[in-house]
Amino acid sequence: MRVLVLGIDGYLGWALTLRLIRRGHEVFGIDNFYTRKAVAEVGSDSALPILSMKDRIKAIEEVFGTKIGFVEGDVTNYDLIKKVISEFKPDAIVHFAEQRSAPYSMIDVEHAKYTIINNLTSTLNVIYAIKELGKNIHLLKMGTLGEYGYPAFRIPESAFVDAVIQGVRDRIVVPRWGGSWYHWSKVFDSYILLYANKLWGLTITDFHQGPVYGTRTEDIVSEELFTRFDVDDVWGTVINRFCAEAVTNHPLTIYGSGLQKKGFTSLEDTIRALAALIENPPEDGEFRTVHHYREIRTLNEMAELVRRASRQILGYEPEIAHLPNPRVEPEEDLSYEPERKVLARLGIYGLTRVMDEEVAVMLKDLVPYVDRVRRIEALFKPRVRWRD
Amino acid sequence: MRVLVLGIDGYLGWALTLRLIRRGHEVFGIDNFYTRKAVAEVGSDSALPILSMKDRIKAIEEVFGTKIGFVEGDVTNYDLIKKVISEFKPDAIVHFAEQRSAPYSMIDVEHAKYTIINNLTSTLNVIYAIKELGKNIHLLKMGTLGEYGYPAFRIPESAFVDAVIQGVRDRIVVPRWGGSWYHWSKVFDSYILLYANKLWGLTITDFHQGPVYGTRTEDIVSEELFTRFDVDDVWGTVINRFCAEAVTNHPLTIYGSGLQKKGFTSLEDTIRALAALIENPPEDGEFRTVHHYREIRTLNEMAELVRRASRQILGYEPEIAHLPNPRVEPEEDLSYEPERKVLARLGIYGLTRVMDEEVAVMLKDLVPYVDRVRRIEALFKPRVRWRD
Repeated sequence: MRVLVLGIDGYLGWALTLRLIRRGHEVFGIDNFYTRKAVAEVGSDSALPILSMKDRIKAIEEVFGTKIGFVEGDVTNYDLIKKVISEFKPDAIVHFAEQRSAPYSMIDVEHAKYTIINNLTSTLNVIYAIKELGKNIHLLKMGTLGEYGYPAFRIPESAFVDAVIQGVRDRIVVPRWGGSWYHWSKVFDSYILLYANKLWGLTITDFHQGPVYGTRTEDIVSEELFTRFDVDDVWGTVINRFCAEAVTNHPLTIYGSGLQKKGFTSLEDTIRALAALIENPPEDGEFRTVHHYREIRTLNEMAELVRRASRQILGYEPEIAHLPNPRVEPEEDLSYEPERKVLARLGIYGLTRVMDEEVAVMLKDLVPYVDRVRRIEALFKPRVRWRD
Repeated sequence: MRVLVLGIDGYLGWALTLRLIRRGHEVFGIDNFYTRKAVAEVGSDSALPILSMKDRIKAIEEVFGTKIGFVEGDVTNYDLIKKVISEFKPDAIVHFAEQRSAPYSMIDVEHAKYTIINNLTSTLNVIYAIKELGKNIHLLKMGTLGEYGYPAFRIPESAFVDAVIQGVRDRIVVPRWGGSWYHWSKVFDSYILLYANKLWGLTITDFHQGPVYGTRTEDIVSEELFTRFDVDDVWGTVINRFCAEAVTNHPLTIYGSGLQKKGFTSLEDTIRALAALIENPPEDGEFRTVHHYREIRTLNEMAELVRRASRQILGYEPEIAHLPNPRVEPEEDLSYEPERKVLARLGIYGLTRVMDEEVAVMLKDLVPYVDRVRRIEALFKPRVRWRD
């Protein structure tokens, strides 16, 4: 298949690209390198070294003997995305070209606006370009399970759900509640995609995951193929940050009570699911909501797991520090188990990674780069507060 | 009170300003004159002549002996809105500074993006400026009843509602379904306001109305005080367009079956409600959802009403033409009666205008300007289609 990857330089974009080419697909990528700049903006850097895009492409050629197409540019530029789609003629477009940090979106008004405007503009450009150039292109869009918040009902894996309101049964869009401007931008994205599907019959997979962790996939066979790995307060997801804290023997920083539950997934399992969804697209004109996570864990459980792995791999146990939660989120022990049937129904739900083994791999990958991690150690503590 | 009116040059912004100064309030306005430009962009113009802002301000001074403050500028400019709030120190901000045409938002990708980006940027700027400069400022935001679509349940007049989903009772945000990018921008606005209220305790009135009609309020005592009056396919709301069609003896253009129901309100009653909500603000930190409409009518009923009024005022009956509906909306006879208790509970729900009398006033106001109306007669037919 011909797959256009928007945001190819990112944590998932790059790892997915490696998988796609190894599975014989043709890949074209677009990136504006905004994440590299925005990570530098908050004084940070990827904990694992990553090559420039030019060298990344060269590395792919050397390791796998495959060429990929790439253009540096911004998906908020409609002419660019139209031109690329016209020329490359993709079967599928994977849309990662969004600002993806909740804390970054909460820094101030400019970062709030950047997040919402960038994310919605890119989504609008993509749906209009598909409508204009090829309605049969399958759009796979990265959302987040965080769009739903923590409702009392079990989160259904569908765009619409039956609800009884004011005594009347109706079919409503699954209710959502964002926990940051970033999350709201993803909520708005979902509505835009759903409307585009109803209006124009676009074929869409709206993919929702919890936090991803991991340094490796089966394709990252050498360090020159590393995907980025962020561990600071703004860009690092929680398990990745815990592992970086562990290798510098910094306390593992839990925000608040640590009873918050998340649906975690390893990088390998994420990429496996994404590749499967590309290779098994929805019917023409179908809107498919997909939930994906491997294990529901509290932050406390994850910190304990990283601590145990540290003892084994590093020979010591880092402390655990509960910091005042900079976010506004429920901290009590809630029932949380979003539905996830679609991937299983497609017969493509084979999860491969065991959490503590994966954490061990991460610690081993980070040890040679402990000096890089130490340079951003000051950034483990959260600097962005949801309320003043 | 000191009231900052964002979008002061618009249909409602200008009419509200006249009311506020006559009730002894101090008004400062901002406008970028985008509506004037965007109406010209589609080849149209206000059917009633309106003065430049400079002359409008002079007219207010001459007729009422009152000065208002004004700055030409864009609410998407954060520094501007901050400066104006710092200097004027408003008690209330009325936020009309949004692109307010559904067809305009559906022209193409650029108009879709303009609508969503302009509207969300202005709302984000306003809430951040209030958070930074004075959390006690009351924000009154113009939404639309169109945010809800046409659900089976009765639309509750509140931000949240109880719902039973997957067998579990929960409190969810009142479900919404936009019928155009314009409507979705208003839906997103509502979520942004609700989140700002929960996060920072901002005091907000989220005001939802159906289509407004009318040329006059009690304050529009001379033609130099006219507010704009749009009647073309892109900018005209339905009763206003019917009246313009009537004076040129053009068929009244109904889109589709005409069974679509709307909650209509006269300009006078709209302005009365807005002034009352400003003078009776919510409690500090309260989020108040307010619905306002006078009468639920189908488009067919409204066309008949305008036809009857035409016979009386103009001496002839225009035809009624059912055109293919350019919009995607339900056209069957649905039950529709959004809750509206808040204005009544505040004791400020005195509706004054009788629909057919108001339509008669509109026809009389338009007759002297029949040549202006004839110049845009070609624009009565819808040019913007929701689907290709």
